Amino acid sequence: MSTATTASTIFLKNTWYVAAWSHEIKAEGMLARTITRLPLIFWRDQDGRVVALLDRCCHRAAPLSKGRREGDCIRCMYHGLLFNSAGQCVEIPSQEFIPPAAKVRAFPVVERSKWVWIWMGEPTKADASLIPDTHYLDDPGWRGTPGYLHYNANYVLIADNLLDFSHLSYVHATTLGGSAKYAGTRPKVTREGRSVHVERWLIDDEPAPFLRNLKTWPGNVDRWNIYEVVLPGVLLMDSGSAATGTGAPEGNRVDAASFFGCQAVTPETEKTSHYFFQQSHGFALDDPAVTESLTTSVLAGFMEDKDIILAQQRILDLDPDAPMLALRMDTALASFRTMLDKAIAEESAQT
Amino acid sequence: MSTATTASTIFLKNTWYVAAWSHEIKAEGMLARTITRLPLIFWRDQDGRVVALLDRCCHRAAPLSKGRREGDCIRCMYHGLLFNSAGQCVEIPSQEFIPPAAKVRAFPVVERSKWVWIWMGEPTKADASLIPDTHYLDDPGWRGTPGYLHYNANYVLIADNLLDFSHLSYVHATTLGGSAKYAGTRPKVTREGRSVHVERWLIDDEPAPFLRNLKTWPGNVDRWNIYEVVLPGVLLMDSGSAATGTGAPEGNRVDAASFFGCQAVTPETEKTSHYFFQQSHGFALDDPAVTESLTTSVLAGFMEDKDIILAQQRILDLDPDAPMLALRMDTALASFRTMLDKAIAEESAQT
Amino acid sequence: MSTATTASTIFLKNTWYVAAWSHEIKAEGMLARTITRLPLIFWRDQDGRVVALLDRCCHRAAPLSKGRREGDCIRCMYHGLLFNSAGQCVEIPSQEFIPPAAKVRAFPVVERSKWVWIWMGEPTKADASLIPDTHYLDDPGWRGTPGYLHYNANYVLIADNLLDFSHLSYVHATTLGGSAKYAGTRPKVTREGRSVHVERWLIDDEPAPFLRNLKTWPGNVDRWNIYEVVLPGVLLMDSGSAATGTGAPEGNRVDAASFFGCQAVTPETEKTSHYFFQQSHGFALDDPAVTESLTTSVLAGFMEDKDIILAQQRILDLDPDAPMLALRMDTALASFRTMLDKAIAEESAQT
Repeated sequence: MSTATTASTIFLKNTWYVAAWSHEIKAEGMLARTITRLPLIFWRDQDGRVVALLDRCCHRAAPLSKGRREGDCIRCMYHGLLFNSAGQCVEIPSQEFIPPAAKVRAFPVVERSKWVWIWMGEPTKADASLIPDTHYLDDPGWRGTPGYLHYNANYVLIADNLLDFSHLSYVHATTLGGSAKYAGTRPKVTREGRSVHVERWLIDDEPAPFLRNLKTWPGNVDRWNIYEVVLPGVLLMDSGSAATGTGAPEGNRVDAASFFGCQAVTPETEKTSHYFFQQSHGFALDDPAVTESLTTSVLAGFMEDKDIILAQQRILDLDPDAPMLALRMDTALASFRTMLDKAIAEESAQT
Repeated sequence: MSTATTASTIFLKNTWYVAAWSHEIKAEGMLARTITRLPLIFWRDQDGRVVALLDRCCHRAAPLSKGRREGDCIRCMYHGLLFNSAGQCVEIPSQEFIPPAAKVRAFPVVERSKWVWIWMGEPTKADASLIPDTHYLDDPGWRGTPGYLHYNANYVLIADNLLDFSHLSYVHATTLGGSAKYAGTRPKVTREGRSVHVERWLIDDEPAPFLRNLKTWPGNVDRWNIYEVVLPGVLLMDSGSAATGTGAPEGNRVDAASFFGCQAVTPETEKTSHYFFQQSHGFALDDPAVTESLTTSVLAGFMEDKDIILAQQRILDLDPDAPMLALRMDTALASFRTMLDKAIAEESAQT
Repeated sequence: MSTATTASTIFLKNTWYVAAWSHEIKAEGMLARTITRLPLIFWRDQDGRVVALLDRCCHRAAPLSKGRREGDCIRCMYHGLLFNSAGQCVEIPSQEFIPPAAKVRAFPVVERSKWVWIWMGEPTKADASLIPDTHYLDDPGWRGTPGYLHYNANYVLIADNLLDFSHLSYVHATTLGGSAKYAGTRPKVTREGRSVHVERWLIDDEPAPFLRNLKTWPGNVDRWNIYEVVLPGVLLMDSGSAATGTGAPEGNRVDAASFFGCQAVTPETEKTSHYFFQQSHGFALDDPAVTESLTTSVLAGFMEDKDIILAQQRILDLDPDAPMLALRMDTALASFRTMLDKAIAEESAQT
């Protein structure tokens, strides 16, 4: 299996991608962001609803994000065409007739729990009930800090990373991870619909390094990472540690350090990606030092991921078709890639 | 019509391109400049005549611009071949026989009114009478300052900009342009031979912002932009403003602010361009403050053009075949592109 | 003959390339270096022997050079695979069975006289007796300083430069070269096996500029450059100057300034190269000022080469298929390119 798979070069269209954090799209102004190689412009209409249009004027391809907002419309500041929030051109200088083709593509958008989701495919198929539940992002029972990293790497390499936590013992040995014992455990991997479910337990081991500033226990802990990765690359993870015996699958998680992680990888182009993440804690809610320490640890860890993934991308660039050797630890990764390739192939067959 | 037209990727050969300002080619030294993807070297011979040769030694492709001038010859400083100003090799170290193929291509050059023109096609077809009249560049009845911008964009996008002044109301709203009323007027567009003629009048409106430092009138003005764009991208423009009633087509332009603009876009490569320009004023000739203010305004305005054109190029790079929607305001632009594509197609057919 | 020859884009495999200076590979740590577009990692095992492996984990293509040395093994720090110095995987976290394919390619390496040589082809053909004799690099009878330059140019352009010393009169007129008389002499060129032999004498001329700080003679000198360039690009050169009459072919080189140069060009990618060199002097062995002056002069001269070669590469990039005109001075260069193209064609035919 090489990265030169369908998934790396053709993008899934009929799916929800995380496009932005809510706070990135302000009441005034506009956000320009490219997703699946399409330039997009996002803004809020006067009712606060997020609008997403193709950031390319239908006339001469100037980006609307260089334009001017006029109420709920946007004016291209090259030659003055005015578009409403549905992408329909409503004014053309020097001519009264507006051709039906004078419009820019509008994309279905849903804003939910601080994330703005966009549907890049057929609008009539945009079913908001398909959006994964990420209420942890703004649930009062959880605390966390929004994060974003831009990657000069294909997004599937980032998804690969999320699908195999073996790397915690190596990439994150001194931060989010810990001993080699973690890599030695085997997760339970199942596939359901458009997601891969991974459940991983480390019983009776020292707490991970990053926990030292968050919580202490008299002895060892049981540690869990229970998560799913949903197409095209959204991770939803229940994780935590509790005193050994109380955390384990049948335990009651008494006095646990519990976390919920929401992460999303969104392709910008074939070689660049957006990465959105928030790790929320469900304990010590009123202690900002815990939130801050967790935020710092998570970012440090994710920079370690970025470092190895960019290195991997550099090596792959020298020989994109180099073979990769499938190992047992790749079960979830392989399952996800197969699912993604299949979904893309199905879309291609329909068009 | 997309930018992926003939004109963007194949260059017209049998035409005069502006290669340089006269002052860029000094008595000593050499100027290296790439035009239509061909590296060129320019210098002045001992009689002051400009010489243009391919900047690639026929031997091992070293650039002659890294060489040494020796009288009216230039020596390649890699292996010592000496070429005269006709491009003929006249000396080869270590051998007396000079093969007939030992020459570099020489290009017809004409220097006229501060511009150096080069003919990139068949030398026998280089007819100097085809060079557009740009005497305004150094006519004592006009004052202006030479300008140059390098563009990381295809040259036809710059020509497009010159062919549709609708953009004055948007790109230059606070500088060279003015109110939306300008974009609402319709130019008269005619095509003649290898040029497109555009005539545009704005009657009874406020003076354009940049005029404030140049001239004042008690009331509104009539404004004209009368220009032609000649293949492959040379703009010659009579423009100005005069008190309403005196400027209009049948007016006598009493107390007018009159300008003559010469601009030329020359392709460097498919994705980069040279842009030469001078806006001359025909009034207040002895007031250097007017020249300076005009120079500053024009450069500020042309940087606004550059900003939107580079943005347009970035969007086109994401999808070079994206469609563009033809509007009424594109009449001149479309006419010019058609003329350019046709001229290139005719050349291709001949070879 | 254009640079778009086989040799520029396909690399010879069954040959020894200089990979590094001995001192670049320390007892601890690792050296990452790409050769013939293959990423490699070099390190010393506990016996001090240099090991070279493909710098791409067989699992997910992460570079091993981001890994951790563990005795004579290296652990990939993405998912923890452990490889021994033969490239065999000896440990996989979470599974006991190690598939036979779990290995990375190991390359034959020979360290000799401060240079580390690598064989990029079929390991069974790696015959150390084919390695050119470069004992001058660390022979007590010679003194010199190791040098290295990285080039953004194809390696054959650098080899071209070494094969035609006509350029000394032009590129190095004020440094390593001298008068045009040098370029006017004709070398004797012979080909033998996988090397081209060049012998060049300049009789009764002023000493080269760089010699002024090294040695003085009462009058003119005879100067020799006798060298071979061995595939894929290793120069071995006996050069020097002696008082006229004593240096000439039949002379006894009394009171000579004698040098021995070892230089090697190694392709990194199609457009980038490694260049290793040491110019050793065989006189004034105990005068460090001579070594220092020679080192400085040689580096200054090689920067002049780099400047013209990068300029040449830039010109070639504009038109890779532009023709080149063969001249008499190209005899050695042409012979070497023919030999190299033939060797590559033979390899291609065998696979």
